[in-house]
Amino acid sequence: MLTLYDLAGAEPDRRFSPYCWRIRMALAHKGLEVETLPWRFTEKDRLAPTGQGRVPVLVDGERWVWDSWTIANHLEDHYPDRPSLFGGPAGRALSRFYVQWTDTVVHGGLVRLVVLDILRHCHEKDRAYFRQSREERFGAPLETVVADREAQLPAFRESLTPLRLTLRSQPFLGGDQPLYADYTVFGAFQWARGISEFKLLSEDDPVHAWRGRMLALFGGLAGNAKGYAV
Amino acid sequence: MLTLYDLAGAEPDRRFSPYCWRIRMALAHKGLEVETLPWRFTEKDRLAPTGQGRVPVLVDGERWVWDSWTIANHLEDHYPDRPSLFGGPAGRALSRFYVQWTDTVVHGGLVRLVVLDILRHCHEKDRAYFRQSREERFGAPLETVVADREAQLPAFRESLTPLRLTLRSQPFLGGDQPLYADYTVFGAFQWARGISEFKLLSEDDPVHAWRGRMLALFGGLAGNAKGYAV
Repeated sequence: MLTLYDLAGAEPDRRFSPYCWRIRMALAHKGLEVETLPWRFTEKDRLAPTGQGRVPVLVDGERWVWDSWTIANHLEDHYPDRPSLFGGPAGRALSRFYVQWTDTVVHGGLVRLVVLDILRHCHEKDRAYFRQSREERFGAPLETVVADREAQLPAFRESLTPLRLTLRSQPFLGGDQPLYADYTVFGAFQWARGISEFKLLSEDDPVHAWRGRMLALFGGLAGNAKGYAV
Repeated sequence: MLTLYDLAGAEPDRRFSPYCWRIRMALAHKGLEVETLPWRFTEKDRLAPTGQGRVPVLVDGERWVWDSWTIANHLEDHYPDRPSLFGGPAGRALSRFYVQWTDTVVHGGLVRLVVLDILRHCHEKDRAYFRQSREERFGAPLETVVADREAQLPAFRESLTPLRLTLRSQPFLGGDQPLYADYTVFGAFQWARGISEFKLLSEDDPVHAWRGRMLALFGGLAGNAKGYAV
């Protein structure tokens, strides 16, 4: 029995955590059924057994596992008979850089485009927490952070160059089939898709086509989730 | 019998092509002996059998192979009993992104710091070609491109963030042992090392420590090559 605490907005079926999406996709890759529980930023008490306050948190039987990379490794090691997320030890090691690139380059660029859209979709009880914590991080009102997002968009698209060039020569980062590296990067786009109508990618971008392939995986798991089709 | 056409400066033992270094390291990884032939930018005629004018070019028996990625794959496929450069099909696919990231982000930042140093080390007969082709690319004299390199250095170091964070949790990109992804990124640093005294990395940077491990591999293949120990 697998249960995932999954960040939700005001509507319980609006799921928009990039880290939770990595795990949703990883669970589907492994063919594992999961019950996802909507969770809000301020519900730290519900995660008490983990001694920390962020999702994703996976409960696998008696075991609580948290941090998306740790969860992915847990799934790989505890369900070795299922399709591999990494394609072996080398693939596992090589996946780390994708995590770091996504967390810094992709998320760093993206959050400045959509952070106000996140606020708008947060549950009422999360809004003050979200605004305050993010405005502290940016040192500016969220309205100011996103004010020039049209002007920031070219730099964001430019930052995706290595991804774009890779996807010109193969359908997925993992090759002919997606791997955890794909879910890692894709989580960023699914984060935006959940809460923002801002158009991130031009339609002739290989990244756009790849995102389409990712949205379609596992019977449209990500594509059918509540979000904006932009 | 393996022969590699390898970019050289005025001194025939000054080898400074990042793409050639990928292959030098890959050959050593496979335990393959190679004769390297110094080659200069303007010696296009020597590469005539390839129908193109750039190195690395590997001659493996009767076969001419060019483009570093193609050569790496040739080595992996034709010497399968030797240590793998990719660690399997997933690792091979996952290595592509490292190539694209290095070619764009790392090389793109680095060339603006060291391009004048390259010119200074070029063979006399290459200098006019090198200056003209690079000044066309930059739209500026090479002296102008590097004039503010101290000011550009923080952005270059910042661009290495995903590499730095990855190397905080594992000794090589490939995990406990280096793989082709390591050689790909390392080639950039070995390029700079061959021709420039400009200090790229601070000594407390995990990237600096990793570069040190790379320089020591294969009996100091890269570390003992002619260059600047900065």
